[in-house]
Amino acid sequence: MKASPVALGLDYGTESVRAIFVETQTGRTLGEAVVPYRHGVITDALPGTNVKLGHDWALQDSNDYVKDMTRAVKTAMKAGRIAGERVCGIGISFTACTMLPAKADGTPLAWQKDFARHPNAWCKLWKHHAAQPQADKMNVVANRRSEKWLARYGGIISSEWFFPKALQAIEEDPRVWKAADVYIEAGEWLAWQLTGRLARSTCHGGYKQCWHKREGYPSAAYLRAVHPELPKLVTEKLAAGPRLAPGEPVGGLTAAWAKRLGLPAGIAVSSSIIDAHSGVPGAGVASDGVMAIVMGTSSCHMLMDKKEKLAKGISGVVGDGILPGFYGYEAGQVAVGDIFAWYVNQCAPASVAAEAKRRGKSVHELLTEQAAKLRPGENRLLALDWWNGNRTPFVDANLSGLMVGLNLGTTPAQIYRALLEATAFGTLRVIEAFEAARVQTKSIVACGGIAQKNPLIVQIYADVTGRPIDVASSPNASSLGAAILGAVAAGKAAGGYDSAAQAARKMVAKPKARYRPNAAAHKVYKAMYADYRRLSEHFGRYKDPVMRNLRSLA
Amino acid sequence: MKASPVALGLDYGTESVRAIFVETQTGRTLGEAVVPYRHGVITDALPGTNVKLGHDWALQDSNDYVKDMTRAVKTAMKAGRIAGERVCGIGISFTACTMLPAKADGTPLAWQKDFARHPNAWCKLWKHHAAQPQADKMNVVANRRSEKWLARYGGIISSEWFFPKALQAIEEDPRVWKAADVYIEAGEWLAWQLTGRLARSTCHGGYKQCWHKREGYPSAAYLRAVHPELPKLVTEKLAAGPRLAPGEPVGGLTAAWAKRLGLPAGIAVSSSIIDAHSGVPGAGVASDGVMAIVMGTSSCHMLMDKKEKLAKGISGVVGDGILPGFYGYEAGQVAVGDIFAWYVNQCAPASVAAEAKRRGKSVHELLTEQAAKLRPGENRLLALDWWNGNRTPFVDANLSGLMVGLNLGTTPAQIYRALLEATAFGTLRVIEAFEAARVQTKSIVACGGIAQKNPLIVQIYADVTGRPIDVASSPNASSLGAAILGAVAAGKAAGGYDSAAQAARKMVAKPKARYRPNAAAHKVYKAMYADYRRLSEHFGRYKDPVMRNLRSLA
Repeated sequence: MKASPVALGLDYGTESVRAIFVETQTGRTLGEAVVPYRHGVITDALPGTNVKLGHDWALQDSNDYVKDMTRAVKTAMKAGRIAGERVCGIGISFTACTMLPAKADGTPLAWQKDFARHPNAWCKLWKHHAAQPQADKMNVVANRRSEKWLARYGGIISSEWFFPKALQAIEEDPRVWKAADVYIEAGEWLAWQLTGRLARSTCHGGYKQCWHKREGYPSAAYLRAVHPELPKLVTEKLAAGPRLAPGEPVGGLTAAWAKRLGLPAGIAVSSSIIDAHSGVPGAGVASDGVMAIVMGTSSCHMLMDKKEKLAKGISGVVGDGILPGFYGYEAGQVAVGDIFAWYVNQCAPASVAAEAKRRGKSVHELLTEQAAKLRPGENRLLALDWWNGNRTPFVDANLSGLMVGLNLGTTPAQIYRALLEATAFGTLRVIEAFEAARVQTKSIVACGGIAQKNPLIVQIYADVTGRPIDVASSPNASSLGAAILGAVAAGKAAGGYDSAAQAARKMVAKPKARYRPNAAAHKVYKAMYADYRRLSEHFGRYKDPVMRNLRSLA
Repeated sequence: MKASPVALGLDYGTESVRAIFVETQTGRTLGEAVVPYRHGVITDALPGTNVKLGHDWALQDSNDYVKDMTRAVKTAMKAGRIAGERVCGIGISFTACTMLPAKADGTPLAWQKDFARHPNAWCKLWKHHAAQPQADKMNVVANRRSEKWLARYGGIISSEWFFPKALQAIEEDPRVWKAADVYIEAGEWLAWQLTGRLARSTCHGGYKQCWHKREGYPSAAYLRAVHPELPKLVTEKLAAGPRLAPGEPVGGLTAAWAKRLGLPAGIAVSSSIIDAHSGVPGAGVASDGVMAIVMGTSSCHMLMDKKEKLAKGISGVVGDGILPGFYGYEAGQVAVGDIFAWYVNQCAPASVAAEAKRRGKSVHELLTEQAAKLRPGENRLLALDWWNGNRTPFVDANLSGLMVGLNLGTTPAQIYRALLEATAFGTLRVIEAFEAARVQTKSIVACGGIAQKNPLIVQIYADVTGRPIDVASSPNASSLGAAILGAVAAGKAAGGYDSAAQAARKMVAKPKARYRPNAAAHKVYKAMYADYRRLSEHFGRYKDPVMRNLRSLA
């Protein structure tokens, strides 16, 4: 029997890039490797300079995207002893909106000596929140003008998106703005690098760039009302390149890259998909009513529906945005694993660290074990999970975390469990935002590292939401999804598939586990959620302005 | 020159007892010693038994009060090489309401084998909060009947007080209730032990036992409406013994105790004062308009005024309650140092503990050093300091701690400073409660361990309240106050004084330091306090019931 063709998925996360090689006929992973970005997330100063960054800045070095990916691909191939000639296509999933200014030939502005000391010339990571003033301005003007497209995004533009991040450069550093021929998502840029062909992605476009398949971008009149320079973003810097759906090939791998990676020249490279969205096919979700949650440092909630419904507080409704034939809906929580990591680093006491060490566990594992012994409600704590602002439903980076119920007997395990529960309440809030637009969540498939590793949190999510939750079979659904799209870009003739649904059926295994809600626990959580919901409305809508007031201090 | 007579102060705190020997003519401390209670604060199970305690229980073993005091006295005498015959009087300050049931001969019920396994037979420490249902009931009935005496306590009876703690025994353990001939404050009981004479204290009575110099106790009709047995508390179990003011002698030291302690038999033992109130003379405060704050595990705020004014949210207005000739006003914060200790034990991360160790500092010292580098408002955090409920103005043990503004960049030093600030906001709230009754706070004298050790917190209190704060000279103003009252009980003829004011003038040194408010910091804190005040009204008055809801869980 001839060896199955292989698809390569390149999955760019917040901290690292993963390369995964998957047999298209069997779904078997032959090799994979993760390489952390050399410069990680840049929040303090530009690397190699003394240029300090302001509050809420989060940049990356686009050099890392090519160099560290190259290392990941080679390491994975070596580990899996994969013959390069078996590879038929490459899929790319990428954090979004992670965006950069570039020259017309694809060279990032930050690579030019002139601009190395200009923060706005660097790649702005999805969680760069310093464009909040720009987002605020765009929202004010859009509301004043009753811009219709705003409804597709739940009525609010996020500071994480493409336009505010570009507008920040216009306002803060006109030299960068003028020098940039192209503004582009990092995922689109990567495909451009690999193929030599500039194309745009419907997924990045629809979810992050205020673009619509039929209606295009916001009007020049609106953009001009925000800033006289802003229309040029659409007419000049976003103009080049066709819009392609994930799974559509941008082009063939260049000879130079083929050589560098040890892969066949000319194999198809798929149009980029947002990393979270990639988890949908990667988790085997290919129908409406099934919510895919990618749980990681942040969480992304994706649902599909046959119709286009405008949902208040949902961050994007995009035709063919996830899989062809469906409107893709996206919502999310800005910080999930990030909150737990913050807790472990900034709050877990020395006594817990010592016990974890003694017992050969990580602090996360020990706290999870202790938290699992608590009954729902036993911690008598409630938190708003807004440690990095709120995305659904408020789309507001100025919101912050809150915890109530603290007393002298409160233990680390109780706080840890309250944080797990808070993110579950945040997910139920997302489900309710979808429901308000008559987009139903019948069941849930969870994927991402946290869902894979932590049965307690998945059970809490089931108990809080009152819905069964399947945990996806792949430990890296986003990466598998990228490989699936690589197979789709290759097409059946080249050893891949002609549709994502077909590819998902063959390449995704059955769920790893199913968690059913416990009725008694659900009852307790229902009562607690009423408190969560009331508090979140109170603070999230600034009925009490304390969170805004705190942000404006010092 | 003949050696000055010496007064002995016995100062019973939450965790330990301190004995201090002070020369009456010079105020010089000759020797002192602290002995932690052998059984500390009992919250889990009755010592030597498997009898578990419920939520919010906090007991002590009255054996510790005599045995550990004896050790403290002997250690202090030895350390100071103090000749027993120089001692002319003994003062007692004690936490309150710390109370116990006893037989007619003074034997605590818990010392009887029959009752060793009955939690209600043990000594209930001031921070025993399990009588909240009983306090709730007393408040409901008192409000329904428009009981006038309630106004002296700011309109609310606290679960920490004498009547709810006794009522808890009536309701939960009638055997204990029936067997108790006497219910008594531990400070009063101690004086009884030392002198063989049972007397009551105007201070304990006025602040904790709903007693008034002219009006006496709440009426039998009211008490009956609460519980048919409750009138007996007044007519039987509180009936024996006269009411004496702090500084008035209960009697002379018995021969047995004189021998045991190595002191002269017959020297005067003063009527007990609440430990916090003892800090007023101990801090040299002897006039109206000067607030004395005793900052320890909890904080107590005391003010004096020539007139009796009824202040909403103030926990006690007592004629001669602190010093003769003044109405003493008391308010407080249930947890202050307790919150910081909780933070250090339950939240300060391993990295902070490691750095503290490396630099030879305590975790408190390191966090204080780091917190001192932050500008007011720089932490962008706000907390409600209700980790053990709230006393002023809400008198409600069901309230709990809250923190808002948390984000992924929040550091331990930021949280620590937010907790310091929260207790300062709580103190400003106390000042405002007094002001609402036209009892003015012109300046502040702070005493207690925290004020002595931590310049940062005192400066924050000055900046938050906008008032100058003197730190009392004595590191243990409560203990010095007890010694002063011992000298007053002895009287001038025996080597002491005929008034507390005279004694304070001679025995208290000038303030150790004065902290003046910084105008810029005060401005920031004024804005933050507006948020604190609004949040505290919102949650403290159950406009949002989340804190009550959390308490009723699991």
